Amino acid sequence: MVDIATRVYNHKWKIDPIVRSLIDTDFYKLLMCQSVFRNRRHTQVTFSLINRTTRIPLAHLIDEGELREQLDHIRTLRLKRGESTWMRGNTFYGKRQMFTPEFMDWFENLQLPPYHLERIGDQYELTFEGLWPEVMLWEIPALAVLMELRSRAVLAHMGKFELQVLYARAMTKLWEKVDRLRAIDGLRIADFGTRRRHSFLWQDWAVQAMSEGLGDAFTGTSNCLIAKNRDLEAIGTNAHELPMVYAALADSDADLARAPYDVLSDWHEEHSGNLRIILPDTYGTEGFLAHAPDWLTQWTGIRIDSGDPAKGAEIAIAWWKSRGEDPREKLVIFSDGLDVDKIEELHAQFAGRVRVSFGWGTLLTNDFRGLVPDDALAPFSLVCKAVSANGRPTVKLSDNPEKAMGPEDEIARYKRVFGVGEQERVEVVV
Amino acid sequence: MVDIATRVYNHKWKIDPIVRSLIDTDFYKLLMCQSVFRNRRHTQVTFSLINRTTRIPLAHLIDEGELREQLDHIRTLRLKRGESTWMRGNTFYGKRQMFTPEFMDWFENLQLPPYHLERIGDQYELTFEGLWPEVMLWEIPALAVLMELRSRAVLAHMGKFELQVLYARAMTKLWEKVDRLRAIDGLRIADFGTRRRHSFLWQDWAVQAMSEGLGDAFTGTSNCLIAKNRDLEAIGTNAHELPMVYAALADSDADLARAPYDVLSDWHEEHSGNLRIILPDTYGTEGFLAHAPDWLTQWTGIRIDSGDPAKGAEIAIAWWKSRGEDPREKLVIFSDGLDVDKIEELHAQFAGRVRVSFGWGTLLTNDFRGLVPDDALAPFSLVCKAVSANGRPTVKLSDNPEKAMGPEDEIARYKRVFGVGEQERVEVVV
Repeated sequence: MVDIATRVYNHKWKIDPIVRSLIDTDFYKLLMCQSVFRNRRHTQVTFSLINRTTRIPLAHLIDEGELREQLDHIRTLRLKRGESTWMRGNTFYGKRQMFTPEFMDWFENLQLPPYHLERIGDQYELTFEGLWPEVMLWEIPALAVLMELRSRAVLAHMGKFELQVLYARAMTKLWEKVDRLRAIDGLRIADFGTRRRHSFLWQDWAVQAMSEGLGDAFTGTSNCLIAKNRDLEAIGTNAHELPMVYAALADSDADLARAPYDVLSDWHEEHSGNLRIILPDTYGTEGFLAHAPDWLTQWTGIRIDSGDPAKGAEIAIAWWKSRGEDPREKLVIFSDGLDVDKIEELHAQFAGRVRVSFGWGTLLTNDFRGLVPDDALAPFSLVCKAVSANGRPTVKLSDNPEKAMGPEDEIARYKRVFGVGEQERVEVVV
Repeated sequence: MVDIATRVYNHKWKIDPIVRSLIDTDFYKLLMCQSVFRNRRHTQVTFSLINRTTRIPLAHLIDEGELREQLDHIRTLRLKRGESTWMRGNTFYGKRQMFTPEFMDWFENLQLPPYHLERIGDQYELTFEGLWPEVMLWEIPALAVLMELRSRAVLAHMGKFELQVLYARAMTKLWEKVDRLRAIDGLRIADFGTRRRHSFLWQDWAVQAMSEGLGDAFTGTSNCLIAKNRDLEAIGTNAHELPMVYAALADSDADLARAPYDVLSDWHEEHSGNLRIILPDTYGTEGFLAHAPDWLTQWTGIRIDSGDPAKGAEIAIAWWKSRGEDPREKLVIFSDGLDVDKIEELHAQFAGRVRVSFGWGTLLTNDFRGLVPDDALAPFSLVCKAVSANGRPTVKLSDNPEKAMGPEDEIARYKRVFGVGEQERVEVVV
């Protein structure tokens, strides 16, 4: 066990760099990277970091020099021998050789591409340009760096014992959540909290606490480094960036309409079982499912990542029924803005009707709400997204207009092509 | 900072023996030891450990072999060079050479005498016999060993993260007390919690937390080892064993009546200033003060250690006034069963009327109430007292009949000699 308070007190990033490994990232990033590497490796993309919580003045809180140091450090990282061995030799979802020798050869020689950093007022503009399989790997570490530098900036003013008590309180808070989760019969839950974690050490602690506290109900972590170090299952499927980039590359409205299915068609060839999880909300869940090809109904399940989650799950259940599938055999993974109340509620509503699972993110790995004055450690909504592909802007609609991204005219075009009408607004907390 | 949970998890007593030094004891023990060494070194005494909380089945909880190992380990301890240097070279209450070269020569060669341990039902009978200056040094380590072995017995069944969260909760609890104490203007408070501490590591943490949280309001610790390691003031004066043994040695009722003053007369010759603190309650505070010689009114202050503390302080104030002293220049040290509520209350009542100070014991270093099921870590009332001197039984009356000790007929005789009438019973919690 790490004495987090001491480590924070002694923080020198050379001892505790924020990102300490190329696999300190989400497992699905590596899965998607391999898919991109195989199918679209020459695509030029731009990823951009966006602070959706503009009241947090990141550039005021975080020193630019420190930020550059951390980002530069990430560029010095190379896949380590033990990490490569773990990726090559490990069983993921019961399957070996998830990563092909071609991909591993490429990954072993990878250095992350340069970044572009500019201060604009109280915010930073941080962008990454280059080949898709390289640039995409910046997303998680870039977010983790910004989140943790903000934590460190707040913690820097605290005394040694004040820090220890802060972590004592955070541990108590998390453990009380674990106690409540332990009471949920048949729970299956994983850590999805890498990108907006309070810190690496804290995520590592949170994962271990979940593991001890929940036993088999804790199915694993999305973080590959922690999964490797703590001998846990690495968990993950796929994300919005695949349909977003595929869609941006479409040459016509017809191609655009087909793009989200093309993504899953490529995925279908590469993966089976638990990795066949539909993420339907990029351009509206209802339309996506209504127009989905029949082979998609055979997939294992669906991930609900925006909008009202209960509504999303009901739509999926209705869809499976309409296609002659038994929803009780299907997996529904909830992963948007979860905390214990919501987990309890959704589990009560859907357990037995479908196979329920949870990907618990920010409020697992960064719930420091109420622990310092002015709530200066409360998590906030930071994202890092593909904003263009081969010079064309990307668009995301999702099931919540608060999460929509892209140029206005393109959003209008996508809404038309995907038949998205009026959407319910849901406040984005984290 | 020590990661207490890890250390507890890894407990091997060879790494973390409960008592790790001959100066892991209260400062006043060493002061009294020197006084005894000078004035009564040939007295044969018996000290005996008594569990006043009989509902705690110590012999059931604590393995006899482990207890013997810990006690045997204490007998292997010798004063270390650095400890001797600290005692010889340090300033105590602004004075150097508090310990004479003769005493230090003796102490440097000291090994604690043998112990006698027997299991009687669910309790242990633990006694120490021999020369007073040697035997008296068993009191604090013997208590600390029993207290911590009981803690370890309870903790042994807990998981790694359960332990870490337990300490997280205890830290949070203590820090909330520190926060409340910080708000008391003009507070002066010291750690008196060695004997009934949860553990050495925990006392060490508590002392450091008090030091960071309260700054100068925290005046020091009674524990010499922690004072030395943490560069704090070692705090203490004198205790009941001096009048108890002096009284037992008295040959007549007239000698007995004079014995408590003989103690302070010897002390008067040896110490000045802040060490001239009257402990008046051994045979009843009212009678003691009523018959006190005039030179005692010149002493710096008084320590209130039993009975209703406000009443005790009022008696002292009235006494000083009746002898023409200004109470505002006198120090009143409260040290019996304190917690934050009581500290706030006493401070509000007496600040300005006297110089107020607090010696905070068990509920500083062992407040794990409410943190585990069945309150299995709640502190309890364990004492180790002189029960005979040169073959004669000792007696303590104190200002609370619940704390009285000694054979019934002797208690009656002492009550007669010291003119102690009806006393108010106060529940003894710790």
